[in-house]
Amino acid sequence: MLDDRAFVREGERIDDLQRNGLRILQNPQKFCFGMDAVLLSGFVKAKEGERVLDLGTGTGILPLLLSAKTEAAHFDALEIQDESADMARRSVEMNGLSERISVRVGDLKEASDIYGKAVFDVVTCNPPYMNDGAGLKNPEEPMAIARHEVLCSLDDVIRESAAVLKERGRLYLVHRPQRLSEIFAEMRAYRLEPKRMKLVHPFADKDANMVLIEAVKGAGVFLKVEAPVVVYREPGVYTDEIYDVYGY
Amino acid sequence: MLDDRAFVREGERIDDLQRNGLRILQNPQKFCFGMDAVLLSGFVKAKEGERVLDLGTGTGILPLLLSAKTEAAHFDALEIQDESADMARRSVEMNGLSERISVRVGDLKEASDIYGKAVFDVVTCNPPYMNDGAGLKNPEEPMAIARHEVLCSLDDVIRESAAVLKERGRLYLVHRPQRLSEIFAEMRAYRLEPKRMKLVHPFADKDANMVLIEAVKGAGVFLKVEAPVVVYREPGVYTDEIYDVYGY
Repeated sequence: MLDDRAFVREGERIDDLQRNGLRILQNPQKFCFGMDAVLLSGFVKAKEGERVLDLGTGTGILPLLLSAKTEAAHFDALEIQDESADMARRSVEMNGLSERISVRVGDLKEASDIYGKAVFDVVTCNPPYMNDGAGLKNPEEPMAIARHEVLCSLDDVIRESAAVLKERGRLYLVHRPQRLSEIFAEMRAYRLEPKRMKLVHPFADKDANMVLIEAVKGAGVFLKVEAPVVVYREPGVYTDEIYDVYGY
Repeated sequence: MLDDRAFVREGERIDDLQRNGLRILQNPQKFCFGMDAVLLSGFVKAKEGERVLDLGTGTGILPLLLSAKTEAAHFDALEIQDESADMARRSVEMNGLSERISVRVGDLKEASDIYGKAVFDVVTCNPPYMNDGAGLKNPEEPMAIARHEVLCSLDDVIRESAAVLKERGRLYLVHRPQRLSEIFAEMRAYRLEPKRMKLVHPFADKDANMVLIEAVKGAGVFLKVEAPVVVYREPGVYTDEIYDVYGY
């Protein structure tokens, strides 16, 4: 087995994911995964034998965490940025997960052309949240592409998710609650019905700053709004839930 | 001034609203207001001089509470059930609020015919939550009418709210989170954009069982999801927020 250091390129570091000994390559100068990806990984339900696609996988944080947290059979991971996809691929190899996670460079706007229609049980996505791409100074930078809708819109994400999902397949999305009415409208436009939702509040008495949504293709109306996640008990101190469930 | 007892009919009782000495007539055999109405009254923002309409007012709990909690100029209250409207009217009189609250018998499906279009700054509504009216044994009973969509649908409530509201006017609704995607879709269909939302959880670690929504006519997408309301600290014991803010 190769030494971990063989996988590292200039500017990169290896981070321990605190879960089954998993490690991930990141370049702190470019983009590091956030708590949103970790919270989404705790929200996703993928069952034994299921086939999962992560749209816009970045450095592969979601399939890596979900490989440990679920018994899904296989994860496909699509990423438009060469450099991120290359890091994701090396992280997968470094963790000995090449059989279970396949990383591919490609545009999520073409996901259903790449993978085919109605082939996945589960789609996960931590998309860019902000639809203000037009005003960006450096729209070609990795962080801009990850955070702003420069290369894909909410409509693209939801349309392609719906297309690649089997009937009754599930989309798991993390997004900003500020855009919730738009997210629900887009989902319904593509027959994805929101069925389970969890708000994330930085403190118990503050507005939500993230929302986790499970939508089911072809399902009827009935949304379960679960107890919220509260991230901090006091400034700098995570709540027990964050320590216990998310391994911080 | 008349003695309170002069306002009471058989089967009715007077309940103290724990707010500015307000009292309300209720018939416990028929229907009593619930915590949903009280939570909605704490969520509504009505400014000095504004004109407010409460759709399906029942025994008038919302305009009564809002008359104390806000500086709105005038409240109209529409109720389809004669008996409830009569109780609401007597409660208003008993509290000396006849100048500020006008109760009317009528169908909320015709609200914009009754009051006119684009005339209110604020609409409040605690509508029936359940769309299972077809299976009811006694659909003509007051409690059935208050809880199930026997005489009006969600679409009726939102269409008429949108019609009677001025541009930029606000609708305040309490409903079941289970129907949230449908509520948002209906709102957007009538140009009412959800702008502020609060979930209500019976306990901090339980699913939400109510949702409070403020929607603004003609506004753009941006939803503020406020800190949730948690009702009970432990079984039978309200949280401080419920004691302090809602006067329980």
